[in-house]
Amino acid sequence: MALGIKRVRKKAGLQPGAMVFSGPERTHPVRISILHYADSRVDESKNVAVEEALMPFDRPGVTWIDLNGIHDTTLVETIGKHFSLHPLVLEDLVTTGQRPKLEDYGDYLFLTIKRISLTAPHKTLGIEELSIIVGRNYVLTFQETEEDSFTAVKDRLRKGTDRFLKSGTDYLAYALVDMVVDNYFAVLEELGEQFEQVQNQVLASPTPMTLRTVYRLKNDLIMMRRSIWPLRDVIIGMQRNESPLITHATALYLRDVQDHTVQIMDTIETLRDMLAGTLDIYMSSVSNRMNQVMKILTMIATIFIPLTFVVGIYGMNFDFMPELHWQYGYPLIMGVMFLVVVVMLWWFRRNKWW
Amino acid sequence: MALGIKRVRKKAGLQPGAMVFSGPERTHPVRISILHYADSRVDESKNVAVEEALMPFDRPGVTWIDLNGIHDTTLVETIGKHFSLHPLVLEDLVTTGQRPKLEDYGDYLFLTIKRISLTAPHKTLGIEELSIIVGRNYVLTFQETEEDSFTAVKDRLRKGTDRFLKSGTDYLAYALVDMVVDNYFAVLEELGEQFEQVQNQVLASPTPMTLRTVYRLKNDLIMMRRSIWPLRDVIIGMQRNESPLITHATALYLRDVQDHTVQIMDTIETLRDMLAGTLDIYMSSVSNRMNQVMKILTMIATIFIPLTFVVGIYGMNFDFMPELHWQYGYPLIMGVMFLVVVVMLWWFRRNKWW
Amino acid sequence: MALGIKRVRKKAGLQPGAMVFSGPERTHPVRISILHYADSRVDESKNVAVEEALMPFDRPGVTWIDLNGIHDTTLVETIGKHFSLHPLVLEDLVTTGQRPKLEDYGDYLFLTIKRISLTAPHKTLGIEELSIIVGRNYVLTFQETEEDSFTAVKDRLRKGTDRFLKSGTDYLAYALVDMVVDNYFAVLEELGEQFEQVQNQVLASPTPMTLRTVYRLKNDLIMMRRSIWPLRDVIIGMQRNESPLITHATALYLRDVQDHTVQIMDTIETLRDMLAGTLDIYMSSVSNRMNQVMKILTMIATIFIPLTFVVGIYGMNFDFMPELHWQYGYPLIMGVMFLVVVVMLWWFRRNKWW
Amino acid sequence: MALGIKRVRKKAGLQPGAMVFSGPERTHPVRISILHYADSRVDESKNVAVEEALMPFDRPGVTWIDLNGIHDTTLVETIGKHFSLHPLVLEDLVTTGQRPKLEDYGDYLFLTIKRISLTAPHKTLGIEELSIIVGRNYVLTFQETEEDSFTAVKDRLRKGTDRFLKSGTDYLAYALVDMVVDNYFAVLEELGEQFEQVQNQVLASPTPMTLRTVYRLKNDLIMMRRSIWPLRDVIIGMQRNESPLITHATALYLRDVQDHTVQIMDTIETLRDMLAGTLDIYMSSVSNRMNQVMKILTMIATIFIPLTFVVGIYGMNFDFMPELHWQYGYPLIMGVMFLVVVVMLWWFRRNKWW
Amino acid sequence: MALGIKRVRKKAGLQPGAMVFSGPERTHPVRISILHYADSRVDESKNVAVEEALMPFDRPGVTWIDLNGIHDTTLVETIGKHFSLHPLVLEDLVTTGQRPKLEDYGDYLFLTIKRISLTAPHKTLGIEELSIIVGRNYVLTFQETEEDSFTAVKDRLRKGTDRFLKSGTDYLAYALVDMVVDNYFAVLEELGEQFEQVQNQVLASPTPMTLRTVYRLKNDLIMMRRSIWPLRDVIIGMQRNESPLITHATALYLRDVQDHTVQIMDTIETLRDMLAGTLDIYMSSVSNRMNQVMKILTMIATIFIPLTFVVGIYGMNFDFMPELHWQYGYPLIMGVMFLVVVVMLWWFRRNKWW
Repeated sequence: MALGIKRVRKKAGLQPGAMVFSGPERTHPVRISILHYADSRVDESKNVAVEEALMPFDRPGVTWIDLNGIHDTTLVETIGKHFSLHPLVLEDLVTTGQRPKLEDYGDYLFLTIKRISLTAPHKTLGIEELSIIVGRNYVLTFQETEEDSFTAVKDRLRKGTDRFLKSGTDYLAYALVDMVVDNYFAVLEELGEQFEQVQNQVLASPTPMTLRTVYRLKNDLIMMRRSIWPLRDVIIGMQRNESPLITHATALYLRDVQDHTVQIMDTIETLRDMLAGTLDIYMSSVSNRMNQVMKILTMIATIFIPLTFVVGIYGMNFDFMPELHWQYGYPLIMGVMFLVVVVMLWWFRRNKWW
Repeated sequence: MALGIKRVRKKAGLQPGAMVFSGPERTHPVRISILHYADSRVDESKNVAVEEALMPFDRPGVTWIDLNGIHDTTLVETIGKHFSLHPLVLEDLVTTGQRPKLEDYGDYLFLTIKRISLTAPHKTLGIEELSIIVGRNYVLTFQETEEDSFTAVKDRLRKGTDRFLKSGTDYLAYALVDMVVDNYFAVLEELGEQFEQVQNQVLASPTPMTLRTVYRLKNDLIMMRRSIWPLRDVIIGMQRNESPLITHATALYLRDVQDHTVQIMDTIETLRDMLAGTLDIYMSSVSNRMNQVMKILTMIATIFIPLTFVVGIYGMNFDFMPELHWQYGYPLIMGVMFLVVVVMLWWFRRNKWW
Repeated sequence: MALGIKRVRKKAGLQPGAMVFSGPERTHPVRISILHYADSRVDESKNVAVEEALMPFDRPGVTWIDLNGIHDTTLVETIGKHFSLHPLVLEDLVTTGQRPKLEDYGDYLFLTIKRISLTAPHKTLGIEELSIIVGRNYVLTFQETEEDSFTAVKDRLRKGTDRFLKSGTDYLAYALVDMVVDNYFAVLEELGEQFEQVQNQVLASPTPMTLRTVYRLKNDLIMMRRSIWPLRDVIIGMQRNESPLITHATALYLRDVQDHTVQIMDTIETLRDMLAGTLDIYMSSVSNRMNQVMKILTMIATIFIPLTFVVGIYGMNFDFMPELHWQYGYPLIMGVMFLVVVVMLWWFRRNKWW
Repeated sequence: MALGIKRVRKKAGLQPGAMVFSGPERTHPVRISILHYADSRVDESKNVAVEEALMPFDRPGVTWIDLNGIHDTTLVETIGKHFSLHPLVLEDLVTTGQRPKLEDYGDYLFLTIKRISLTAPHKTLGIEELSIIVGRNYVLTFQETEEDSFTAVKDRLRKGTDRFLKSGTDYLAYALVDMVVDNYFAVLEELGEQFEQVQNQVLASPTPMTLRTVYRLKNDLIMMRRSIWPLRDVIIGMQRNESPLITHATALYLRDVQDHTVQIMDTIETLRDMLAGTLDIYMSSVSNRMNQVMKILTMIATIFIPLTFVVGIYGMNFDFMPELHWQYGYPLIMGVMFLVVVVMLWWFRRNKWW
Repeated sequence: MALGIKRVRKKAGLQPGAMVFSGPERTHPVRISILHYADSRVDESKNVAVEEALMPFDRPGVTWIDLNGIHDTTLVETIGKHFSLHPLVLEDLVTTGQRPKLEDYGDYLFLTIKRISLTAPHKTLGIEELSIIVGRNYVLTFQETEEDSFTAVKDRLRKGTDRFLKSGTDYLAYALVDMVVDNYFAVLEELGEQFEQVQNQVLASPTPMTLRTVYRLKNDLIMMRRSIWPLRDVIIGMQRNESPLITHATALYLRDVQDHTVQIMDTIETLRDMLAGTLDIYMSSVSNRMNQVMKILTMIATIFIPLTFVVGIYGMNFDFMPELHWQYGYPLIMGVMFLVVVVMLWWFRRNKWW
């Protein structure tokens, strides 16, 4: 279900911290991958078991544990306990439909954001959760997707530009958020193109399908805005955070992401404003065409109704109707009717009815 | 009455603190139940008399007095006097239709919130008041419902997880508010499902009933928003309260409830935005179908009106109408009319009228 | 005039402090009544002359001078000079159409609020001004109404509950404001009932009168909101006032009135939101019924137009029309026409036109 | 042009401080008048030359130089240089279409406000600029109007009430602003009356002209709001100004003007809200009347179409039509048709179509 | 593409600071021009090579390097490295579709604003980026336009008024921003004129083209608002900047630009409000004219339908129809029909149907 309303449900009356996965049922295997980097060295292991993932590295650096498959609540709990996460964090990790938020638990930051994508074939808007936990020397990511969505960031790490490898966990968190925000641009561009198609259709030849596309676009923009709006507060929170986990250098980069978020919200609002105008044009186009049709048809009717009356007169069977016996009665009456038609057409023309 | 406007009435000119029950008249028996807990022991008594309820417990712990039936104003007054509540609090306890609010009276906190439910058979939105008074070692709850609505919380107490039993009155208050907010999710999910049904109907085959459902949903959302919006301030007030009645540990849990409230408000706004779009689609769908009907019918009329004119001509009784005497006049005129029909159909088709 | 726009006019270019009564012309006699109370004694005189009203009382307590009839500007000026009121206050006292406001002049507080009532027979919304001046040991009230509107408060004084009689001028001011706000509830309840009637009409059988009621209700709510909205600031101002004229005990009661004001504004907004929805339903109901009518009528027309064409054919006077001479030509053609009708009805049915 | 958009144009790329008159071209003679007052003496000279105007007075007091005709930029520059005004102030003085604003240049305050009037014959809204410069012992006013618009204030000065003559330049500035704001009331009252006329027309018998009046009123209110809204900030700025040019006593009077401005904005918003409702009523009234017309006409058509079919039947020329030869065939068929009419009318009535 | 949505796209997953030109592909030659000025001397070189541009001047003063052609990312990078710009600045310089913003990097300010123009033949709104970097003794401008857009500012420099030449880099930055803002006025005036034309058309004789112009104007205003709104923050940021790069004297001029920006936003909002009203008028005008047409046509139909019925009656072939044999039957029936017509016309007139 696209609205994400169903998934907001919590289990009324359960104690807080109770871990019940709330997303749609999934059974695909859980994947854990680990990336450890320091200075110029990068170690990567894919599809490792949870025990292996939690084994401590014997040298300093950043450890990134990426868990794909939050429906396995036991696994999430095991990892959570290892890093002593608060019960409320554990509950949030497995609850989908959350609002993006940032929470500072002292030893670690917990942030939830939304990944947005358009999935074929109908370019349906898909919204997935991504939870990031930023500790002093570890980063945990929790999500639920089919394919690995962090390829771009992992590639940058593997290529090993010094800046990235020398930075701390805050820069990795920034890189992940930045990637997600960059994806918003791609989705928005796609919606923007759809909007222009719809706009052209509306101005050229609108169909009921056009209206549905307008409606779908509108809802997509509402859903996007809902997912992105709170992100602003998350990023501002990270920038202003007095927590020692975020360095000043990274805060500068976060300001850049912040700018992008504002720009995206801006574009969404602009698109919504313009869509509203499109609806007006559509409504008026449709009623215009209908009016055109009705006008022409009614004109035809109006011309022939008086004529039918006239021929009706001479179809009467009165004994004494002198015109019937005139030699030129028939062509005369035809001429009169022709004249009536001409006059009516002229009158219609003068009143700009066609 | 669903709007809750009637119940806002106060008795103009009465002195403040005057206790007059303002809800719809009720006569079902008043139920008082008591729950006392400390460390790991839980004592519970149901349907006790008011004198028994007010007898002090001889050991420390939290006493929860749950009064169901605020129409018995004398009873409320007795309890209020026992705990030295302010006259304005007593007045508020028996006045339904209040706005959710939090008031700090030093020795105790007074909070009023709204319980929301959908009652069969028409899933009508029901809004009930719940007043909670949080003292140092007692919690009083006042409400007016048919069945016991605190089962979930009471069960958690009876099961006796240590955390709960060892916490103070603030945690109990949190648990009650949390349960109420969790219920909002359930109601909202139900409304969300109704919205999707309505949306599908509107896109497939809208009827006037669909419009009424849209209207009812809209009003339900307005009523929900009105009940939940002020709750935000209540919970923020509890979190920030400098009162010693709320501990820091509980404040963390309150932040969680706070998040849920924001998320619910968010979803309500999203639903309202989308409902507005649904109305546009409905209006346009209806006018579309009507236009379709009118177009086809008018086309039929337009085709036959000129033809009727033609047959009218040859129904005239002029003495001199040569065509009438041609041997093939009849089939000829029939052919001409057939041609006219074909031309008109072609013209309609070319102009995309069907 | 209900809008209260006419009365906003001031006399351009006059010096400030100029006293010109700006309400509609009135000539009914001015009434002054005095109430003096202290501890447990209450002295009351009705319809006294102004000289008597201004005679000082020889014992401590609160003096309340209630002037009904502000069109007598000389009288207002006499009283104003006696209590050394600022010229701008005098000007405001006799100018109707003021916005509710609170002004602190050091020795006294000046507040203007609005009394709202529904007057028979058409339940027209009436908005009257009430100005209150709160001094250290006196309260002055200025208004312009037919009957004594302070009966409820005066009765409470006469009954003489100790709390009231022992309180100062601030409590009296509170009691007056509370009474006015309580009246808003009564008016709002009445409007709420009218709204429900209108809502039922709209859902059952809307008439143009329904629309007018919606329009009137809408305007009434706009006028109420305009009168009550600034009251919030007035009461907040009184609560937060650092002036020694308002005691802490009274501030608690003012918070209660404040709550009521917020609740009223809330209900007004809710009603306005719902009224907007009502309009949509009305519009769609009307167009629905019209569509229904047009559809049925057009169907009748559509059925008979082709038939009329057919009978027109056999009314033609061609010499050679073989069908005319068939023995069963007449019943045959009647049968054919019957068949056409049946087919058309079936087709209409299949397309859900009725 | 009423919109005032044309006049906003500045000359792109010119250096700041460039003085180019931007209003519509005018050639009427420039008028300078001077008023000097102190204690109880008032000196006034009208239509003086600029040199004379700038001659210093040999005794203390307030000098008010009133320049009517800002299209003479040289003159404005001469005066500006004499009082050492900032180049940006000079530029603003001759630029019309400015937003009301207050600027503190240390030695003097510069304020621009809008004069609003309704000019005959069509009561078109006219918006004129008024710039006031308040120095320590001088006030300069710059404007562009046909007749002297300060008569009221000048009269008050000439009459010479002590308070005014003894006050400083700040009181004069207040008096001018107060006069302008009082004028807003007059304009608003006029618009309010037009609104009520329109409202009555809409409820009684709306014409397309009514709609245009609604449209014009709406635009007038938009223009007024645009001119008055920033005035609030100007007056608040004057009140809170830490500049020694504004005394405390005058600040009290400014608070009064401030109240009036808020009240005017309030009334404008109320009128706009109500106008929006008027439009709904209009639209529905028009469509209602149209529906009424269409319904009656279509009913007539519907009644006669089946009848015409029936008479068509008996106009057919079949050889064998037994009814034609019945003696009472004609009255019978007439009777049948009469019955059909009655049944249809009854059916229409039952369905409430008239 | 006019919407500027396409261009917002960033390259998801690329490292921050990656320089990829994001505007539409362009190949016209890059132009670099240099202007150095100090005291009263101005040196200017056009179309210089980048090496020459970066050669340091041997005397103090302001160096302005103007680069036209940001699609040459290597060039931008060379210049950027020479002045040690931050990687994020370099990325922003070559990314079009940015939101106007101001960033303080200590040694220099980086600001991005929007140039707006209407390009022939269809007066399409064109929005171009302009990036300005303000250092201690240098100003860099980056843009992408066909012709030199800084002619006005350069001319002022060449003319060499002392004030400009003696000012620092902040005044040059101000002059550039001022020029851009002045251009907004020109564009807005043009749109204002188009609005008035549209308004007149709507009131006189609206066509579907009118509606499209309204739609285009609406979108143009949305796009302008989107480009100008953030500019306010940019200029406020410059004014309040504690950076030593902005002097107090220039801050005064910036306040003036700030005023203009506010005024432009104001006018845009006013135009949008009025456009909304225009749409209402258009819709109602169109439906009015349609109603008029339908009414007249239906009236004609209504008059003739009963008449056709009457002549149909006397076209029946009953053997016994006495009227047919009356001598004056024919003129009698014609008279009756004439009467019917007169009565119907009178009735239409009485009901104000024409």
